[in-house]
Amino acid sequence: MRAALELADLAADVLARIRERGPRVHCITNSVAQQYTANMLLAAGAVPSMTISPEEIGAFVASADAVLVNLGTFDIERRSAIDVAVRTAAEKGLPWLVDPAFVDRSPPRARFACALLEGRPSVLRLNHAEFTAVSEHEADAGAAARFAQAHATVVALTGGVDIVTDGERSTAVANGDPLMSLVTAMGCAGSALVCAALAVEADAWLATLAALAAFGVAGEVAAQRAQGPGSFAAAMIDALHGIDRRTLHARVRAS
Amino acid sequence: MRAALELADLAADVLARIRERGPRVHCITNSVAQQYTANMLLAAGAVPSMTISPEEIGAFVASADAVLVNLGTFDIERRSAIDVAVRTAAEKGLPWLVDPAFVDRSPPRARFACALLEGRPSVLRLNHAEFTAVSEHEADAGAAARFAQAHATVVALTGGVDIVTDGERSTAVANGDPLMSLVTAMGCAGSALVCAALAVEADAWLATLAALAAFGVAGEVAAQRAQGPGSFAAAMIDALHGIDRRTLHARVRAS
Amino acid sequence: MRAALELADLAADVLARIRERGPRVHCITNSVAQQYTANMLLAAGAVPSMTISPEEIGAFVASADAVLVNLGTFDIERRSAIDVAVRTAAEKGLPWLVDPAFVDRSPPRARFACALLEGRPSVLRLNHAEFTAVSEHEADAGAAARFAQAHATVVALTGGVDIVTDGERSTAVANGDPLMSLVTAMGCAGSALVCAALAVEADAWLATLAALAAFGVAGEVAAQRAQGPGSFAAAMIDALHGIDRRTLHARVRAS
Repeated sequence: MRAALELADLAADVLARIRERGPRVHCITNSVAQQYTANMLLAAGAVPSMTISPEEIGAFVASADAVLVNLGTFDIERRSAIDVAVRTAAEKGLPWLVDPAFVDRSPPRARFACALLEGRPSVLRLNHAEFTAVSEHEADAGAAARFAQAHATVVALTGGVDIVTDGERSTAVANGDPLMSLVTAMGCAGSALVCAALAVEADAWLATLAALAAFGVAGEVAAQRAQGPGSFAAAMIDALHGIDRRTLHARVRAS
Repeated sequence: MRAALELADLAADVLARIRERGPRVHCITNSVAQQYTANMLLAAGAVPSMTISPEEIGAFVASADAVLVNLGTFDIERRSAIDVAVRTAAEKGLPWLVDPAFVDRSPPRARFACALLEGRPSVLRLNHAEFTAVSEHEADAGAAARFAQAHATVVALTGGVDIVTDGERSTAVANGDPLMSLVTAMGCAGSALVCAALAVEADAWLATLAALAAFGVAGEVAAQRAQGPGSFAAAMIDALHGIDRRTLHARVRAS
Repeated sequence: MRAALELADLAADVLARIRERGPRVHCITNSVAQQYTANMLLAAGAVPSMTISPEEIGAFVASADAVLVNLGTFDIERRSAIDVAVRTAAEKGLPWLVDPAFVDRSPPRARFACALLEGRPSVLRLNHAEFTAVSEHEADAGAAARFAQAHATVVALTGGVDIVTDGERSTAVANGDPLMSLVTAMGCAGSALVCAALAVEADAWLATLAALAAFGVAGEVAAQRAQGPGSFAAAMIDALHGIDRRTLHARVRAS
């Protein structure tokens, strides 16, 4: 359990490292989310790439610093891309994150997500309905911790409050704004920011906490500037780009 | 023929039902349009999904409340997705809409659109050039009504003025702003809003009228706030999200 | 070598022709870039199309005025689309541009780009790392000119300063803003604007110069209005839509 100020400092440190090092994040994500995800990573100081061509994804992942695997569009080419990407990430020892978007709506996608967990991703990020589809348990802090321990991963269970747990350590982050749920791919973009953090912070639990706290605070700042979900989407990118330690200190809420 | 005030009330009622019930709209649409379409649906209070994977589209459509079939990117996987989606929609009795984008530029796409009409979509939404490509008639109110009657569908013939006809009833809606034609996927997003309306209003003609009136009014409100087509695209989403009965009363023009 | 004022006038003339004639630009581009590219073309007054279906791309290209070939997502369907598009463009004598995005990250993509050059595109637009991957030379003005001459094409080597050369004539354009590099697909959108210019100006070297000068100036205008990269992306589209001769005169920097 980390106090809010400690987490705010961690988030500021991790963002500073992303801005300084410009880590490359290779994203296998759905076509709905690609543009927003790429722009969020660029705003944070990271370098996105998005190809899913089987011929070249190996080369892209091999020269990346972290890998995002989002199941939001589940077509055949994307699945073979995921296979190559996960194998390459394992060979290179790269951190990778699974975002099993919409698995609650599609049994084949849920089975695919479970198979991916065998490969030991660094982080599994999902909402409550997705957690239940993957784990067959109700989504609460205890179930998330047990699932994290059983699969040797960090679980980030996102919602009004985000639970981040590696099975032994758990923290709840209570930042964000309801407008975030009215922008498509907002969750995917948050997962991409976690990947950028994984590239610069070896402790996956700390990296996930830092990224989700920064992301939620950016949402709060953006909500103050927006006239609705359309202007909010752009304001969120502006806010993440401009976020500083002082704002994080003032806003991060964790317990 | 409905008076403008009556239509404004209908639009306000339909929007209120969308916001309250959060209908699920499954969209088979082109990759250019996916993000904007999803954000428009979210702003209206609906829940978009976008997968085209043949393995899982059946499950998505079966748990949806309406289906959008947009032909804007006409690749092989998308066509098999359309086959499954239309069959599932027919089995479940779901409303579905065909938006034959760009059929005037591509004979194979026009043939595919005509074959789709055999399956009796609830609504066919197209512009004048697309209508001519599909119907082989000049695009006017009379031809649209005859085409709607012959195919037992609602035709929404969009342009400076939108004609909505089911063959017996016809209304012209004269809302909107020229900036709408400078944002890609604006028409596709309008079609998606019609789908959300179809999910909460059983009379497809009324649902289509309500959605197009609200969409046009949102365009007018957004144009007042925008500095050009870039800020207009976001302002349009803000406007649809915030639109209220008073604004609809003040602005809906129909005859 | 053209003086800045001369280039400003050329850019204003070319933009006026695009706005008047509404040239059709068919874009084979990556799914990350499609929406932003389409909106940039619409803002300039051009008419974008984006299909990559092998069955219909021939018809789309045959009725287009210029063709963009961007390698940013390198999947199988897109490669066969490129083959058909390039053949059709050659048959119809249409101008076409190659943007070999990210070839420095992927050897198969670099080989594909080199093969495309055999077909004599009107313009090759790339950044320094991409130029080195394609040409196996360091990216400077001299190497760009030699490469342009050897391949009978115009090379647009973009960066802080853009070098535009056809091997005999070379001009450096020094417009733009650092925020441009924080928006995904910004380069692709710039390439699309070059295509629109190629459709209305037969001298490919002049067309490329005009488009890149206008694009850079739009970036400068947008940067003054933006709060960060999110609002900048929309402001850039607004700025290109509204740009006028006076602004071009005041801002174009060339040598």
